[in-house]
Amino acid sequence: MTYCVGMMLDRGLVLMSDTRTNAGVDNISTFRKMFTWEAPGERVLTVMTAGNLATTQALVSILDERTKAPEEREPSILSAPSMFQVARLVAGTLKDVISTHAETGQRADSAFNATVILGGQIRGAPPRLFLIYPEGNFIEAGEETPFFQIGETKYGRPILVRAYDRGMSFEEAVKLLLVSFDSTVKANLSVGLPFDLQVIGRDALGVTHQHRIQADDPYFLTISSGWGEALKAAMDSLPDFTF
Amino acid sequence: MTYCVGMMLDRGLVLMSDTRTNAGVDNISTFRKMFTWEAPGERVLTVMTAGNLATTQALVSILDERTKAPEEREPSILSAPSMFQVARLVAGTLKDVISTHAETGQRADSAFNATVILGGQIRGAPPRLFLIYPEGNFIEAGEETPFFQIGETKYGRPILVRAYDRGMSFEEAVKLLLVSFDSTVKANLSVGLPFDLQVIGRDALGVTHQHRIQADDPYFLTISSGWGEALKAAMDSLPDFTF
Repeated sequence: MTYCVGMMLDRGLVLMSDTRTNAGVDNISTFRKMFTWEAPGERVLTVMTAGNLATTQALVSILDERTKAPEEREPSILSAPSMFQVARLVAGTLKDVISTHAETGQRADSAFNATVILGGQIRGAPPRLFLIYPEGNFIEAGEETPFFQIGETKYGRPILVRAYDRGMSFEEAVKLLLVSFDSTVKANLSVGLPFDLQVIGRDALGVTHQHRIQADDPYFLTISSGWGEALKAAMDSLPDFTF
Repeated sequence: MTYCVGMMLDRGLVLMSDTRTNAGVDNISTFRKMFTWEAPGERVLTVMTAGNLATTQALVSILDERTKAPEEREPSILSAPSMFQVARLVAGTLKDVISTHAETGQRADSAFNATVILGGQIRGAPPRLFLIYPEGNFIEAGEETPFFQIGETKYGRPILVRAYDRGMSFEEAVKLLLVSFDSTVKANLSVGLPFDLQVIGRDALGVTHQHRIQADDPYFLTISSGWGEALKAAMDSLPDFTF
């Protein structure tokens, strides 16, 4: 499993992904699930992936190769004219990779599936955030649904739904994401540290902050241990039930 | 889907279940999922069910019929000598009901499955809490795992893990359960009000409190609306991240 969240704020995009992959509980590894392509001052594109690792690695490799030999292949994500066209390219590539393996060789029910969050900005247009399905279609974040989760989404969702505010600072957003990730890690062995964190400021047209949060990161440990007490205080602040 | 929680406290058992059943999002109904058999002063047994409604209704009807004609049928749950034997009876009956439908007629992958929480106390022994699987086996709550959830368990789990304390009062436990249920209702359409609440005090050997919480219950509305603010205050109480 996996846990990734992409969040649209007034100030820009905040993205976080875990790094655990597993085939059974006795075969776990650490792999990066966040990939960025930049043309500084012109565009920045970040992809986060959940699902079959062979599929997501193939997707990222194909997208990356095209950026390096654009004349040989269909339009690369670095030359697509809009974020919508970038999303179409990623989605079409994802669908192709999945169908290549799904239609030949051994059958494995949906085992080749993957889901992708794409965020970024191209000069002259606002930042945009997409959720891309294995079927090759996608949806875009809007006013009512300003963040996307992929992978093991349920444990960490209630806090996002309650505490998200699109006017929040990047620092507040990181704190919120760490609480959401910590709740997930505590409940599901297939989500694990380190976490990759990226901030793409509005109109920065490049990566504003990039940081890997290790399991012994002092700030993460403060949040993880402090959240239990904070929750108990929050419970105490509500009126008691009476029979 | 469904959401039920059974919780073991020092003071006794607290049980809560939702009442929504659905076959698709366009076919929802309200059904009770909490059933109690009492021999006041001697024993109290409560079952909560999740899964196929035909299976769980058959299970409860069979258990109930046996209590009314014990001489005609194998031992009833009202005459079993221990909570362990009650759990064996419920588990065996559940397995029988499922296999009756699973082995004949149309095939429906695991669609006849159901899971059960059984809690109660028999005079001379402490209260006990069991989680019964569709395969007919079961586990018992212990010091390390003092509560069980069935149905849509993920959204409401982080708050239980963080705030549960076996020394808490029944009133605090109800507050905690309502927060957990509210988080679930806000995320999953297949879990819905009203909720059934039951308290079985240690050595009461009967139902101590029984209450149905409707969607317009003033206390529930206070918790539901207050929890968002309480969470934001909890977030604010943690130190901010710095890049």
